[in-house]
Amino acid sequence: MKFQIEQAVEMLSRTPATVKSLLGNLSDDWIENAPDSKNWSPFDIVGHLIHGEETDWITRAEIILGQAENLTFESFDRFAQFEESKGKTLNELIETFAELRTKNLVNLREMNLTEEKLKLKGIHPELGEVTLEQLLATWVVHDLNHIKQLVTVLAYKYAENVGVWKQYLSILQ
Amino acid sequence: MKFQIEQAVEMLSRTPATVKSLLGNLSDDWIENAPDSKNWSPFDIVGHLIHGEETDWITRAEIILGQAENLTFESFDRFAQFEESKGKTLNELIETFAELRTKNLVNLREMNLTEEKLKLKGIHPELGEVTLEQLLATWVVHDLNHIKQLVTVLAYKYAENVGVWKQYLSILQ
Repeated sequence: MKFQIEQAVEMLSRTPATVKSLLGNLSDDWIENAPDSKNWSPFDIVGHLIHGEETDWITRAEIILGQAENLTFESFDRFAQFEESKGKTLNELIETFAELRTKNLVNLREMNLTEEKLKLKGIHPELGEVTLEQLLATWVVHDLNHIKQLVTVLAYKYAENVGVWKQYLSILQ
Repeated sequence: MKFQIEQAVEMLSRTPATVKSLLGNLSDDWIENAPDSKNWSPFDIVGHLIHGEETDWITRAEIILGQAENLTFESFDRFAQFEESKGKTLNELIETFAELRTKNLVNLREMNLTEEKLKLKGIHPELGEVTLEQLLATWVVHDLNHIKQLVTVLAYKYAENVGVWKQYLSILQ
């Protein structure tokens, strides 16, 4: 699919409502991971989305558009949420994510991105040269990836309750 | 997690809003699968959810609760939606799914399910003996499974646009 900024925004603007629909006011049994789980909890996942809004996507787009001497992004801390989300409720995190996303989509719109600007490049600290278009497409897929992770974590709560049906449910494999 | 009917309903009642948030009024480019795709399109997936509401979950629960002589379920037609959804728009399917789910959750509530009733058994045509509790847990996980499928199909639209980031995005593997 050809990248078009309006279609990227179309998907990015939906994620807060999807996250709220899946998790908002959900009872504790659904939300809590087993203490020994290696999976992120819903709480961790929304915290990670928040950290991306605060430090990753728009910040990196600004670096690319600025075309300053140093085009290298800061590394994204994939574990920052474990510290930053402490003491907050899941509903608070969901609201914070929605507010940040709205603000960031305003920022994005104000960049007035053209096809030429989308071809500008920055340097990813591990992956090397990347374009603004790739960054924005990744923002979209990153959202979808974490919605997938959310439904997988939720599904696992019933991994044993489904009995013999387990073999038909690819999400539990 | 111990199965509790209220928690199952809590999750089942959210799915129509989640599906609508992901797909409602989405532009055609996002919705259309490549003609040669082996994946189901969003259209096929919502059609499949509708068929489940019409013929699977509540129907099978009624067979189990009836405890008639023949406790064997009909096979579920996993491809019925390709015929039944013809001529409908995705938005129409999303609304139909929401209406059927609401109706079915009323039906479920009217069954006044107790721990004893949840232990009653039916016969799955391929899997053999299953309990009502397993059927209802499977209904929940089946929803989550197809939300996962939806976000995966959407993410694949940008599989190439993300460039070198692809290796970091497990949804594209």
